[in-house]
Amino acid sequence: MPQRFKLTIAYDGTKYAGWQVQPKHRTVQGELERAMEEVCRHKVRLESSGRTDRGVHALGQVAHVDIQPEMQPKRLRLGVNALLEADIRIMEVRKVAPDFHARFHATGKEYRYFIWNDDVREPCRRFYSYWIRDPLNLHAMRQAAAMLEGTHDFAAFTASSRREIKSTTRTVDLLRVSRWNGQIMIRVRGDGFLYKMVRSLAGHLIRVGRGHIPPELTHEILDSKIRTARVPTAGAEGLFLWRVYY
Amino acid sequence: MPQRFKLTIAYDGTKYAGWQVQPKHRTVQGELERAMEEVCRHKVRLESSGRTDRGVHALGQVAHVDIQPEMQPKRLRLGVNALLEADIRIMEVRKVAPDFHARFHATGKEYRYFIWNDDVREPCRRFYSYWIRDPLNLHAMRQAAAMLEGTHDFAAFTASSRREIKSTTRTVDLLRVSRWNGQIMIRVRGDGFLYKMVRSLAGHLIRVGRGHIPPELTHEILDSKIRTARVPTAGAEGLFLWRVYY
Repeated sequence: MPQRFKLTIAYDGTKYAGWQVQPKHRTVQGELERAMEEVCRHKVRLESSGRTDRGVHALGQVAHVDIQPEMQPKRLRLGVNALLEADIRIMEVRKVAPDFHARFHATGKEYRYFIWNDDVREPCRRFYSYWIRDPLNLHAMRQAAAMLEGTHDFAAFTASSRREIKSTTRTVDLLRVSRWNGQIMIRVRGDGFLYKMVRSLAGHLIRVGRGHIPPELTHEILDSKIRTARVPTAGAEGLFLWRVYY
Repeated sequence: MPQRFKLTIAYDGTKYAGWQVQPKHRTVQGELERAMEEVCRHKVRLESSGRTDRGVHALGQVAHVDIQPEMQPKRLRLGVNALLEADIRIMEVRKVAPDFHARFHATGKEYRYFIWNDDVREPCRRFYSYWIRDPLNLHAMRQAAAMLEGTHDFAAFTASSRREIKSTTRTVDLLRVSRWNGQIMIRVRGDGFLYKMVRSLAGHLIRVGRGHIPPELTHEILDSKIRTARVPTAGAEGLFLWRVYY
């Protein structure tokens, strides 16, 4: 019987075509599986808490994998990290019960979205925050954020089509906007997120912050339950999958 | 009569052989002067608040330059930034009096030194913090930091030889160590810094934090006024020139 391991993974998504294995593209999952197979000397298949898109970063992505039972967690971590480029790292490995599932057992996730809000883009943050020149109105963004907290049908804030998924209702239990100097951080935590939902929420808040639409319109957009061009998708470089809850 | 401009400059030092122009090396000053000459159509010479070493970053480096008087600050900033790679940016340009001097008129500087203190190096911080695996004792680091605040002869904390400079006495008015999760930040502000002084202070605090030497030895090292291998120089990737005061 193989042993199941739970992995906590961090990556700088800048150079990757996202999490999921794709032919002819460098992906985070692909790099990890290749390195793991070299260490474990058998085929492995990682199952993550969910995909991340091209260019999106992670501090606490979680995945599970079945490995030969004699492998020690620390040896697996060190061995695999030694074979990876420095932009992907296994932060933690733990043995878990054989029925643990990184996706189905996740009870919630936290994402953080970073915006660099200044006339000039700060060089050291260029890969890790989305650059908005126009001064953003934090007060308006917070008003809109408060309207998005709670349980709603987020169909207007996803790029997935209704046919692909059973329900577009999700609970966002925290959506908070903070700023220090030129940096704005949007913290969002919820029981689950639809495809491109966090970047759509960020895109909407940015539009409100710019003054292009009043915060009150948030209710109307939510109620419309239709994704339109009114809700833009904010850039991938600002997004970090921060933590997965079990 | 040319007009003198004060420039505030940020850079990601990862790819550069430091600030100062050097033959056959890409330097921050070299890139800036090349771009400025293209915009201004005459030779320019940047004078900075001081050099930064290979791999060191800056958020608020300051330099002055003499330009033809009809050039507008904003046009200079936009024109030069458009010609630079994204890892160097002029954040601000202001007209100043013709006798303003970026180095001689600086009354103080603030540096910040970042340490990633965890078993595994976090990918998105790999170019912007120095990685120390051993758990650092913050309490001991703070004790040593308090002993370094004030006016002292910092000869034991510099790589410059005594013959090169008149005095090795400097005033450090703030040296503070803080931590959030895996990240440790050393904030240091003073009237001036000797060659490699900040990285030597950081190297010393790291050694104390590791428990290799007791914090009380800080007094003795200061008093020795001789640079020895007892004080290591911490890595360049953790260092940011944060601000120059005038």
